[in-house]
Amino acid sequence: MTDCLAARVIRAIRSVVGPESSPLHEPVFAGNEWQYLKECIDTGNVASQGRFLEIFEDQIRAVTGAGHVVAVASGTAALHIALKLADVGEGDEVLVPALTFVATANAVTYCGAVPHFVECEDRTLGIDAELLKYHLVNNTEMRDGRCINRHTGRVIKALVPVHVFGHPADLDGLCDLARDFCISVVEDAAEGLGSLFRGRHLGTFGLVGVLSFNGNKIITTGNGGAILTDCATIADQARHIATTAKVAHRWEYKHDQIGYNYRLPNMNAALGCAQIEQLPELVKAKRNLYGKYLAAFQQVDEVELLAEPSKAKSNYWLQAIRLRNGSTKDFNKILEVGNDLGYQLRPIWTPLHQLIAFSECPRASLSTAENLGQSIINLPSTPHLGSI
Amino acid sequence: MTDCLAARVIRAIRSVVGPESSPLHEPVFAGNEWQYLKECIDTGNVASQGRFLEIFEDQIRAVTGAGHVVAVASGTAALHIALKLADVGEGDEVLVPALTFVATANAVTYCGAVPHFVECEDRTLGIDAELLKYHLVNNTEMRDGRCINRHTGRVIKALVPVHVFGHPADLDGLCDLARDFCISVVEDAAEGLGSLFRGRHLGTFGLVGVLSFNGNKIITTGNGGAILTDCATIADQARHIATTAKVAHRWEYKHDQIGYNYRLPNMNAALGCAQIEQLPELVKAKRNLYGKYLAAFQQVDEVELLAEPSKAKSNYWLQAIRLRNGSTKDFNKILEVGNDLGYQLRPIWTPLHQLIAFSECPRASLSTAENLGQSIINLPSTPHLGSI
Repeated sequence: MTDCLAARVIRAIRSVVGPESSPLHEPVFAGNEWQYLKECIDTGNVASQGRFLEIFEDQIRAVTGAGHVVAVASGTAALHIALKLADVGEGDEVLVPALTFVATANAVTYCGAVPHFVECEDRTLGIDAELLKYHLVNNTEMRDGRCINRHTGRVIKALVPVHVFGHPADLDGLCDLARDFCISVVEDAAEGLGSLFRGRHLGTFGLVGVLSFNGNKIITTGNGGAILTDCATIADQARHIATTAKVAHRWEYKHDQIGYNYRLPNMNAALGCAQIEQLPELVKAKRNLYGKYLAAFQQVDEVELLAEPSKAKSNYWLQAIRLRNGSTKDFNKILEVGNDLGYQLRPIWTPLHQLIAFSECPRASLSTAENLGQSIINLPSTPHLGSI
Repeated sequence: MTDCLAARVIRAIRSVVGPESSPLHEPVFAGNEWQYLKECIDTGNVASQGRFLEIFEDQIRAVTGAGHVVAVASGTAALHIALKLADVGEGDEVLVPALTFVATANAVTYCGAVPHFVECEDRTLGIDAELLKYHLVNNTEMRDGRCINRHTGRVIKALVPVHVFGHPADLDGLCDLARDFCISVVEDAAEGLGSLFRGRHLGTFGLVGVLSFNGNKIITTGNGGAILTDCATIADQARHIATTAKVAHRWEYKHDQIGYNYRLPNMNAALGCAQIEQLPELVKAKRNLYGKYLAAFQQVDEVELLAEPSKAKSNYWLQAIRLRNGSTKDFNKILEVGNDLGYQLRPIWTPLHQLIAFSECPRASLSTAENLGQSIINLPSTPHLGSI
């Protein structure tokens, strides 16, 4: 291997993860997973009956400080319900960062609304509050206390800050802005379990927030997600419409609106209970892994390791490097060489406005998002790599 | 207890299920459930990775004879995808029986389409093909090979036969009719795993069919469902849009359309693998339970036990009695007395056109569905009650 940038990046990765191939992220089952699952089988409570769903919601409440938690079948389902409860409906617009997993924008469309893509910042990879303010001032007007996109005539109902790779977005700036423009904040903290901003857990800053427990997240329930809110009415509604909107009755089957089949099964919640008990150790391992990568990449001048923003304590869910200007030409080479050698490297997502399904959506100027899309690469981030 | 009808019904139930309280339906975990779930934990494959999802789909294919099977997170998700792949979209109409679980109609609305409720028959509780023909002849016209509702101007894209309690609907009549009117058949066999019509498994008669593995079904995956089809293109599309429509690539994140996060996690599929191995015994126990109830209700003249239709072999998922004309006044009394005593009795669903969310939808005359809604009661149906 020549001494090109790709070779030096791979050497740095190898010095941390060792010579064996390494996936991007693998779950750790080192606790009560088997015991709790066995209880589900032994009691017959794998589905909607059983104690784990309630316990898991309590645990999430304790970890996040959210007033109310509703566990559901996926982070996508959580987003869908959260947006609906932020009154996002047919013909509304929702401000979404161009750099996020596609589920953020998909969930907007499930509500019949249109994603409106906004710019990201270099520092956090989240929405750039300064540029968003400029964009809103120039392209919207307030009518009857609602923010209207002057070009489309649609109401901008919600703003969805995404905490990319577990690093908090600029919640100070974004929450202020949302208040000024009468837009609800629906926080996509899918990747943020265990991350804090100003000492407060992600997902608790907006009207509603969501978490994901997908297979590659810091803890997993197989697939799963949660809705966080401090509003009891929203929580009740979330629980209601996530369970087919069935009206409580001993035997009658009546439903008072269109609902969804989105509740997390008890067996998946059981896995979550065992997993979340290990969260402090998982966050510690991931933060430690950051230190290892930091040391390893010290010698690679063209590369910067993504660090938690100020005022934040990040879960460092996925480690990431950024290729500095002038080195982005090696982006694909690094991905190719790394994956060929069995180190699962992954670029940040394709900016969503570049996908065919969203190419006609309204958007701000997105040059930073586009540049980031060609310069950020995730590194193997399985927690045990960071064990001390 | 006086010798009123409710008392005699309860006596008949007690003679079958015994003096202890009895839920409507409980799953049976008598096979490899532990072993398969433990493998998921031990290998770390609880989510999208792992062998059980593929094995489970193979098993469903073997049991049903469907050409292709795609396992998903719920029966509702399966219906949603199935309807989309039958080209049901914004502003279309879909023929749905008035008597079905609400998910059938909800899934139609997820596609932006409108349910059009049609009449059920006494014999099967499924859609009445004769009356549907009459309704279509009188209310639709063919234009460019499409069936148009003359009153709404909307295209009727699909017909959804539902196999209530596992008993096959009149598939001969319904499939003929659908062909004559150029309407696709999307078969809701959520309750029909293990049921045959003319020797062929339910869910394989239409363009697409769906199964459910919800907690109260004959087998369970916690929550889950499957899409059945003989068309490879539809199966590929189902798999694709159920997994966020991600285009296969070693590292790139590109999605070629709006997709969903609907795939069944490996750990839920593992449970399904263990469960479906026991299907023959479960069907046998349920059919045997029917025999026990039949004998027990011999003396209750006002009540008829729901039997499999001709040409069908039913899984008898839920046992049901029908109160004969003149006895429906005791409907609520029977439900109340039974549930008070711990026998979980359940009425058939509220006819969907009577729910507020669907009250404005187009519909046929629905007097039979309305009568059935006040005369059908499900009995405790847990398989072990039928063990010999």
